[in-house]
Amino acid sequence: MTGLLTDLYQLTMAAGYYEAGKANEVATFELFFRHLPRYRNYVVAAGLAQAVDYLLNLKYTPEEIDYLRGLTQFRRAPSGFFDALRELRFSGDLFALPEGTPIFANEPFLTIRAPLMEAQIAETYLLATIGFQSLIATKASRIVEVAQGRAVVDFGTRRAHSPEAGVLAGRASYIGGCIGTSNTETGFRYGIPVFGTAAHSWVQSFSSEKEAFGRLQNLLGDATAYLIDTYDTLDGAHTAASLGPPLWGVRLDSGNLVELSREVRKILDEAGLNNAKIMATSDLNEYKILEFAAAGAPIDAFGVGTDLATSTDSPNLGVVYKLVELDGRFTAKFSEDKHTLPGAKQVFRFAGHDVIACSWECLGCGAGEPSAQALLRPVMLRGKLIEPLPTANAARQHAAESVKRLPTAVRSLFDTGQEYRVEHSRELSALYEKFQHENSLLRHRHAD
Amino acid sequence: MTGLLTDLYQLTMAAGYYEAGKANEVATFELFFRHLPRYRNYVVAAGLAQAVDYLLNLKYTPEEIDYLRGLTQFRRAPSGFFDALRELRFSGDLFALPEGTPIFANEPFLTIRAPLMEAQIAETYLLATIGFQSLIATKASRIVEVAQGRAVVDFGTRRAHSPEAGVLAGRASYIGGCIGTSNTETGFRYGIPVFGTAAHSWVQSFSSEKEAFGRLQNLLGDATAYLIDTYDTLDGAHTAASLGPPLWGVRLDSGNLVELSREVRKILDEAGLNNAKIMATSDLNEYKILEFAAAGAPIDAFGVGTDLATSTDSPNLGVVYKLVELDGRFTAKFSEDKHTLPGAKQVFRFAGHDVIACSWECLGCGAGEPSAQALLRPVMLRGKLIEPLPTANAARQHAAESVKRLPTAVRSLFDTGQEYRVEHSRELSALYEKFQHENSLLRHRHAD
Repeated sequence: MTGLLTDLYQLTMAAGYYEAGKANEVATFELFFRHLPRYRNYVVAAGLAQAVDYLLNLKYTPEEIDYLRGLTQFRRAPSGFFDALRELRFSGDLFALPEGTPIFANEPFLTIRAPLMEAQIAETYLLATIGFQSLIATKASRIVEVAQGRAVVDFGTRRAHSPEAGVLAGRASYIGGCIGTSNTETGFRYGIPVFGTAAHSWVQSFSSEKEAFGRLQNLLGDATAYLIDTYDTLDGAHTAASLGPPLWGVRLDSGNLVELSREVRKILDEAGLNNAKIMATSDLNEYKILEFAAAGAPIDAFGVGTDLATSTDSPNLGVVYKLVELDGRFTAKFSEDKHTLPGAKQVFRFAGHDVIACSWECLGCGAGEPSAQALLRPVMLRGKLIEPLPTANAARQHAAESVKRLPTAVRSLFDTGQEYRVEHSRELSALYEKFQHENSLLRHRHAD
Repeated sequence: MTGLLTDLYQLTMAAGYYEAGKANEVATFELFFRHLPRYRNYVVAAGLAQAVDYLLNLKYTPEEIDYLRGLTQFRRAPSGFFDALRELRFSGDLFALPEGTPIFANEPFLTIRAPLMEAQIAETYLLATIGFQSLIATKASRIVEVAQGRAVVDFGTRRAHSPEAGVLAGRASYIGGCIGTSNTETGFRYGIPVFGTAAHSWVQSFSSEKEAFGRLQNLLGDATAYLIDTYDTLDGAHTAASLGPPLWGVRLDSGNLVELSREVRKILDEAGLNNAKIMATSDLNEYKILEFAAAGAPIDAFGVGTDLATSTDSPNLGVVYKLVELDGRFTAKFSEDKHTLPGAKQVFRFAGHDVIACSWECLGCGAGEPSAQALLRPVMLRGKLIEPLPTANAARQHAAESVKRLPTAVRSLFDTGQEYRVEHSRELSALYEKFQHENSLLRHRHAD
């Protein structure tokens, strides 16, 4: 069903390209964001595996094609277009950053080079896939940063933007640094660790909290995390402590978590349960966790739900997908505040800064030059995956290592006034200026 | 694959209920929100159709069960539990508000009455489904309200939280009052009108804007909407005007939309194209549209993307799913700031206010009493849908008529200090007080 999961205009344009004999012209599109999202100093790239799945499976069923034929917008479309749609598979090339790479404004997440019709249709799905998972991986990265080594688990599926978004948020959270998720579908599909024990309804469904806790301990042993606030948190802590080992620990889900964690710690320690952990949940986010850390609250793990799965303080990543080359010529857009740079690009990462260059440049390649890494790598060629993608676990390690190398000011939760340095190569700047000049001549001509 | 799309703890609890012989105790859960979301005076209920789909299709494949068996959390689970999971289908009852109904804090969207194990497992999916679509239907309702009869179209899929969220956002936007969506999968699945014509890449892919426009007109006829800002909006308007009819109109996507719409209107009128429409896009939301309306900008239609599909200013709806009855007894939760009211409920809607009552009450039923409508209706009984659900189109009409009846202050974009009046019936209040009293005795006993 993936074929129709796009904007109608991609398909009307595809029909138009077909009619104009342009459907098979080779187009290059780049996917990037123009500005960092609000309250973010970097973005962690994620979603590539799902983008590849989409490209490998893109097709139209006869029912889907019949649906399109029936739309008024396709009344005048040439019937050959529908035949082309029936045969359509993605046959192009994909270049992309590895998942887990921190990136900045105007740096492509990915580049598609494919027949115009295919590349155009893929826009909508690619944007939604990369944009969303990168948004959540970024949020997770911030939360993990302030948790300072304490475990963070994604509990957000119930508040995600649809159940499927919850599955993908679990994946992206893991790439961003969470130790796992509560979503078992995420665990099943992507081999990501899953966590969780019991809810308030468990406690309520037995005649006493003590019975509920005892049965949980019997079931889960040293994985037991008692949820202790159904009736009264401190009473709950005493009940949990009275049961002794085995247990993992307790979970606090309401009230003043700094104060309660101290009192609960004391109750557990007095019962000799010094190894029992305290997990906190309840509308957490990176700002609250920073406060807990500053207050020295004895909390060992955080379950983060709503704010993680929806990136509440900054719920959008303004990703765009722009045509930069067509049939061997460069293209660009000059709309107010929305211009694009012509030509396919490469991003070179030096020790403390990036340079966006033309795709054919090789920076850091000369003798004696500081060395740089080219971030965009071939992933698919002529519609085929060239090698298996790194696992989510590998992407998570890559993110952790890469984020650690960013300057402290960039890793801050707040706007420190220090932006990561991203330059344009001299060749790219020259190309853009040439294009601006030609465009102003063109506009001049139009006005005549 | 729906079975695993839940939180792990629902499944560990299910195993525990099975072991405790409680898996088949009849449980009643209610799905509601405790507080209206930030910047919202009402919420439009949506997502019921997908909740029903889920309940009708809930099951576990052998591969999914093997996955669970392999998790450490199920090491001690009785093997009969996995057999029960293999046989599991939703066999309970579902009561719900019709989609499109405006609702307020503590009013159930839906009530599930089912064997405890089934009802527990369903929590996560139901929350994500109802919460997300209601969030987006509400956002759409606000945008449509300020558009004052001008068409609003959902263009948000590319920025939605995953491609599937985009499909569902299109559906929810339509229920909230949009005339349709750009997402063709939404159109195909749910019979919702689809819209769209061409993007900047279309214009860029031809050697001149005039050629691009001419070809579009040829393809789309009177459905043609020229995107006129690729190079220069006013030049683009002149080019569009020079082509004459047929056309639907033009689309502005950057710059000062109030000023540009006036100048473009003049260009179109001077060319005799008085019927040509002007559509505006470019990071719109209800606040910007309110300004356009106040300025009298000659804009006929709005395409709204990111802010609609993610409800940017208020990206979460804090839906919860709480156990209110089990095996014939009432249950409630007394955590700080997170208490729940015991017992299954009904919502009675009077002319200007609502009353939340116990499920067995009948308000407005006595002679001479003001009449009221009971909002929660049976939808599924013993696992079967009792009649086909209303279409998305019927839900949209229901929303439009119901929102129109809300007080002006409640329909405002802003916090007017006037909340919609929602009371508790005397019987419900008495039941809650009785419960609080019993709970304080219980806590007293615990402390001894």
